[in-house]
Amino acid sequence: MRILVLGGDGYLGWPTAMNLSAAGHDVAVVDNFMRRLMSVEMSAGSLTPIRALQERRRAWREVAGHDVDVHVGDLTDGQFVDEVFSDFAPEAVVHYGEQPSAPYSMIDRNHAITTQTNNVIGNLNVLYALRDITPEAHLVKLGTMGEYGTPNIDIEEGFIEIEHKGRSDTLPFPKLPGSMYHLSKVHDSNNIHFGCRIWGLRATDLNQGVVYGIRTAETELDERLCTRFDYDEVLGTVLNRFCVQAVVGYPLTVYGKGGQTRGFLNIIDTLQCVKLSLGHPADAGEYRVFNQFTEQFSVNDLAALVQRVGEHMGINVEVDRLVDPRIEAEEHYYNATHTKLVELGLEAHLLTEEVVAHLIETIQRHKDRILLDPIAPKTKWDPRP
Amino acid sequence: MRILVLGGDGYLGWPTAMNLSAAGHDVAVVDNFMRRLMSVEMSAGSLTPIRALQERRRAWREVAGHDVDVHVGDLTDGQFVDEVFSDFAPEAVVHYGEQPSAPYSMIDRNHAITTQTNNVIGNLNVLYALRDITPEAHLVKLGTMGEYGTPNIDIEEGFIEIEHKGRSDTLPFPKLPGSMYHLSKVHDSNNIHFGCRIWGLRATDLNQGVVYGIRTAETELDERLCTRFDYDEVLGTVLNRFCVQAVVGYPLTVYGKGGQTRGFLNIIDTLQCVKLSLGHPADAGEYRVFNQFTEQFSVNDLAALVQRVGEHMGINVEVDRLVDPRIEAEEHYYNATHTKLVELGLEAHLLTEEVVAHLIETIQRHKDRILLDPIAPKTKWDPRP
Repeated sequence: MRILVLGGDGYLGWPTAMNLSAAGHDVAVVDNFMRRLMSVEMSAGSLTPIRALQERRRAWREVAGHDVDVHVGDLTDGQFVDEVFSDFAPEAVVHYGEQPSAPYSMIDRNHAITTQTNNVIGNLNVLYALRDITPEAHLVKLGTMGEYGTPNIDIEEGFIEIEHKGRSDTLPFPKLPGSMYHLSKVHDSNNIHFGCRIWGLRATDLNQGVVYGIRTAETELDERLCTRFDYDEVLGTVLNRFCVQAVVGYPLTVYGKGGQTRGFLNIIDTLQCVKLSLGHPADAGEYRVFNQFTEQFSVNDLAALVQRVGEHMGINVEVDRLVDPRIEAEEHYYNATHTKLVELGLEAHLLTEEVVAHLIETIQRHKDRILLDPIAPKTKWDPRP
Repeated sequence: MRILVLGGDGYLGWPTAMNLSAAGHDVAVVDNFMRRLMSVEMSAGSLTPIRALQERRRAWREVAGHDVDVHVGDLTDGQFVDEVFSDFAPEAVVHYGEQPSAPYSMIDRNHAITTQTNNVIGNLNVLYALRDITPEAHLVKLGTMGEYGTPNIDIEEGFIEIEHKGRSDTLPFPKLPGSMYHLSKVHDSNNIHFGCRIWGLRATDLNQGVVYGIRTAETELDERLCTRFDYDEVLGTVLNRFCVQAVVGYPLTVYGKGGQTRGFLNIIDTLQCVKLSLGHPADAGEYRVFNQFTEQFSVNDLAALVQRVGEHMGINVEVDRLVDPRIEAEEHYYNATHTKLVELGLEAHLLTEEVVAHLIETIQRHKDRILLDPIAPKTKWDPRP
């Protein structure tokens, strides 16, 4: 299958591109290197020494014998998007090409506007390119579980049947996004749903949980193929950040009460879910949503897990309870359905102590690259005094 | 009260600015004249000979003895927005300053992106200016009933209590917007709700129905004070358009089966609803939604009404059933709650035959200005062959 991976230079995009290429697909990647620039802006950089995209491509050709086509450009540039779709004629599009950080979107007005413009307009250009150039292609779009927020009812997969005043309908699940970034993903979901309803596009929206881990079958083949790993307060996801903190003896930064509960998954399962979605495409006109995670944890659960693993490894891990810089429920009900990907065949790689130990060992190998400054939370959801 | 009217040169913005000024408020208007430019682009122009904004201001000063402050600029320019908020220090903001046409947003990709960028980014700049400069000011934002689409259950005012698997929560009412324009309003609603939840802003989102009419107490005072009146397929709302068609002997353009049902209101009631909202501001942190319309009609109801009035006036009105250029339900359930504004004191001006007759008489006075070309529907929701 000809598969276009948008954002194919990123944390998940690059491993996905290799994974699909290894499976025999004809893969092209698009990236504008925004993620690398953001990381420079945050003064942290990837813990792992990642290579330039063209070097990654060369290494992949050497190691795997497959070529991956590279297009450098910005999805907010409609003409560029059209050219890529016309040249490559994708049969499927995996769309990771968005600004992925909630704290980044909350730094100030400019970062909020950059986030919503980049994500919403880029995604609109993708929808129009699908409509006008490759209307049969299947869009696999990365959304986020954070679109739902923390409602006091069970979260369903994208839609909910509502009975009301003697009538009923199945309608989009109500959303309570918690940052300018999460809002941008909700806007995307609404725009994509429209594209399916009105133009007959096929789309799978993967409402992904928090991803942890760094190793996939392909990244392990050669050190030049490793993916990026962020641990700063803006770009690092919570478990990755905790493991880095454990390694450098920085107390784990638990925000507030630590009862914040989310869905989590291993990066290996991200690749698996994308592949399962591609293998079972949405119908013409169908907008379907899969909740993409394997387990729920609270922040306190994760801190305790890292402490426990640290103890076995002879590392003393302390926990620092900070005033939550975000505005969010610190204790809440949370139960999200996630059966659709399991029905397609997802076999979960669960978060065992062994997985955490391995992550910590990987980080230890790059210990000398860790900067401490970018770890402490600085980005407040309400910066006013 | 110091009230800032964003989009204060438009169909509803200008009458609102005068109405609030007449009531003794200190009013400033902001506009970038996008609506006038759109109208030029559509080659129709306002049926009524509207004056330049500065001429309107001078006329209003002469007639009413009140000055209205004028700021010309674009809401997508954050620095401009900040300057206006700092200079005027509004206690309330009435936000009409958006691209208001569904067909315009569906012309092509560029018009879709213009619509979502203009509306979403402009509104974000307003939210940040409120947060950082006038956090106590009350935002009265014009949304649209079209955000809800046509679900198979009763539409509530912004929120719905959902019982699900033995638990319950009151959550945002699910939305099924039917155009790129309607989507932009849904994005706005989500962003505003967030601003209230996270930053404690006060906002009233007026989900307005389709407005008809042209006369208000203030527009009648002097011909230089009249508001614009659009009748083309892109900018003209359905009843206004039908009345123009009746006057020039153009068969009424009913799209499809004509069972499309919506909420409607007289322009006089728009002013009344805005005033009632301003007089009863939202609490700090409160995001409330009022469904702003007085009656429901189907397109067939309106066509029959115009035919009936035409008959009394000696005008032969024919109806032309065209293939619907939109993609929408042409027959559907529709029942939308609209009690909150009534509870605040709204006294509806209903759509009587007399109201239609008066609208037709007004149009007859400007009959020589009517162009026929822009009336026929050209904008298709799916332009592909």
